Amino acid sequence: MNFLREVVDVARYAKEASRKLANIGGDVRNRALMSMADAVEKNISRIKDKNKIDMKIAGRTGLSKALIDRLELSEKRIKSMACGLRDITKLPDPIGEVIEEHTRPNGLIIKKTRVPMGVIGIVYESRPNVTGDSAGLCLKSGNAVVLRGGSEALNSNMAIASIIKKAACKAGIPEGWLGLISVTDREAVTGMSRLDQFIDMIILRGGEKMIKNIAKNATVPVMKHGKGLCHTYVDASADAEKAARICFNAKVQRPGVCNAMETLLVHKDIAGKLLPGLIKKLQDAGVEVRGDDGTMAIVPGIKQAVEEDWSTEYLGLILSVKIVDGLEEAVNHIASYGSGHSDAIVSEDRDKAEEFLGMVDSAAVYWNASTRFTDGGQFGMGAEIGISTQKSHARGPMGLRDLTSVKYVIYGDGQIRE
Amino acid sequence: MNFLREVVDVARYAKEASRKLANIGGDVRNRALMSMADAVEKNISRIKDKNKIDMKIAGRTGLSKALIDRLELSEKRIKSMACGLRDITKLPDPIGEVIEEHTRPNGLIIKKTRVPMGVIGIVYESRPNVTGDSAGLCLKSGNAVVLRGGSEALNSNMAIASIIKKAACKAGIPEGWLGLISVTDREAVTGMSRLDQFIDMIILRGGEKMIKNIAKNATVPVMKHGKGLCHTYVDASADAEKAARICFNAKVQRPGVCNAMETLLVHKDIAGKLLPGLIKKLQDAGVEVRGDDGTMAIVPGIKQAVEEDWSTEYLGLILSVKIVDGLEEAVNHIASYGSGHSDAIVSEDRDKAEEFLGMVDSAAVYWNASTRFTDGGQFGMGAEIGISTQKSHARGPMGLRDLTSVKYVIYGDGQIRE
Repeated sequence: MNFLREVVDVARYAKEASRKLANIGGDVRNRALMSMADAVEKNISRIKDKNKIDMKIAGRTGLSKALIDRLELSEKRIKSMACGLRDITKLPDPIGEVIEEHTRPNGLIIKKTRVPMGVIGIVYESRPNVTGDSAGLCLKSGNAVVLRGGSEALNSNMAIASIIKKAACKAGIPEGWLGLISVTDREAVTGMSRLDQFIDMIILRGGEKMIKNIAKNATVPVMKHGKGLCHTYVDASADAEKAARICFNAKVQRPGVCNAMETLLVHKDIAGKLLPGLIKKLQDAGVEVRGDDGTMAIVPGIKQAVEEDWSTEYLGLILSVKIVDGLEEAVNHIASYGSGHSDAIVSEDRDKAEEFLGMVDSAAVYWNASTRFTDGGQFGMGAEIGISTQKSHARGPMGLRDLTSVKYVIYGDGQIRE
Repeated sequence: MNFLREVVDVARYAKEASRKLANIGGDVRNRALMSMADAVEKNISRIKDKNKIDMKIAGRTGLSKALIDRLELSEKRIKSMACGLRDITKLPDPIGEVIEEHTRPNGLIIKKTRVPMGVIGIVYESRPNVTGDSAGLCLKSGNAVVLRGGSEALNSNMAIASIIKKAACKAGIPEGWLGLISVTDREAVTGMSRLDQFIDMIILRGGEKMIKNIAKNATVPVMKHGKGLCHTYVDASADAEKAARICFNAKVQRPGVCNAMETLLVHKDIAGKLLPGLIKKLQDAGVEVRGDDGTMAIVPGIKQAVEEDWSTEYLGLILSVKIVDGLEEAVNHIASYGSGHSDAIVSEDRDKAEEFLGMVDSAAVYWNASTRFTDGGQFGMGAEIGISTQKSHARGPMGLRDLTSVKYVIYGDGQIRE
């Protein structure tokens, strides 16, 4: 259990820092963010050197090409991390906002105010630029942060964390505000997820399996940013051309992300008109289409979809297609196999659309638009720390406010309860 | 594992019902609440009969007098449960509220709307009137509910649940909306807390030990409504008469509840003036005072407080008292031993007060008022389902809005992501 010592120390230190941080003004936090951005830019070559070590190890251990690509820190990516930190300073300060205020008949003034969460833990994989982005968002919202990145990016993460930590401390942020867990043992994450006396919330960004494993043992409240099994349902009343454009975008524009479409549901009355052309276009773009019997009858020669397909998040150029009898079957399919992330209806019938938007229980539901828009930036929230598929605390893209808690502050002049 | 069958069935059925409930209007939900109230009043004798069975068993098994008192359902208590249900209909409907709405440059209209959580689990002990109150609040907020009361109240709970369930169904609420777990095996609660595919949130109301045990194994997000170790700090600048009145109220007015004071912290410069009279008055009201060395030097003859006292929620007529050198020591003591529930400062110095209100990390912080005010009714929120000492999702008294989630509803006319 010795490896847990570091985790406990880092978390305890962060908790202490968080108490001071809660009373540090937004101007100081913004100055720190600017210093962090400057420091990142001043240390590009140091960060790149450390990143090269990670890349070399990754090459030796046979990491996939996609993962190695995510791991690499080019000068452009490092500069963009610095820009991201500067952009965060422009967002409004969530801390200190008075959400509600009223005076009770007995004269008590009750203010519901926005305060930092305290200590936020973030567990993530691969992309080392998340280190800068998420530490920045936590600091802007007055929180201390404990980071646990993937072991494959450890050298890059340690370099970035050390640079931004020092820069922020020089600008007046208490020392313990940022902790990076360097123990690569998986038990370290489990240990971290049980330190509810020090950590107030943990955000889990990564694969479904990692998230499930941590969530099942956690005592700290966790926010799952996981699976996105998104559907588009094309209704009988849809404009076929519009439907094809939306579906193609939802699948092809960036297939490796959580808001890309994985399953297309098509009303039987429009399938004959829509599918032959759309499937041809998808195949031309390199998409492997897997259809149910109905789809195969319309477009012969495609691969048959099996039961497992409906619950698979491909994160790549594969699409499963199913013909349905109507809206109800589509909604039930989504309820059975969906992940509660983003689902769309394409329809020219407003009543049908509203029915779909009401019945589908997902973080984001769309009428006549691509599911690819589920994103903090696209929603106009500024930076996001991830997309929550949970229903408690926060749902959908998580911005600065979702990193806060509330506190009731009550002003009296001697009131007692009768 | 056969006892788990019932739990799974109830939860799955509730999930199905919740999908329909999400699209049932506030008028129907209110009519159902009125019918539930009528049904409770029409069945007073039936409820009392079942309650007598629980009381008889409780007498035989040697339940404490305090617990038996909480278990008893007098005609007055049953009527007050019916009144509570009618009062809930008067609260504004949280569902369907558009929290934010804006149009993006690309024409997408993004609405952040308030939706039901889905299925809420409630685990509670002893008081059977919680069955009616909490089912009512869940229904008002469009949620299905799975209840698990204490085994000592099983007959009472089953009678109430069956009566209100039927009444609501007749008024148009889908059958599965209310489930009561009748398996008294403790494993049933553990099983329930791991059914994240069916239950969206569990509210834990009860003893610290029960809450810790469930929380450590839960995969469903839990809301802890637990320990209240509340402090009052009397600053050097306090009005001694006002301080004595507030402290007496916070300790004595209702000592068995979570917002009562357990520890009094007194600035050394006012201790001599405040404590002799206040401690005498507390003792006259039956309070056992336990003091640190400083307190014992001022009021000889009181019992000595030991380390364990500072972390004990007495829930009774005992008070621990400590002399501190100043605000910082008081704030540190609260950080070390407090439960993050409610803490107060008594002071005539606004700067000192604001420092305390900023530094103390609790759900409710008070200036010159009794901690006893932490309560949904006293805060003007209407009924509450409990008081959260967590920082994520909800903090402090939980009202209807805290039983909801959000959903992004996006209206497009063919937008795709570039």
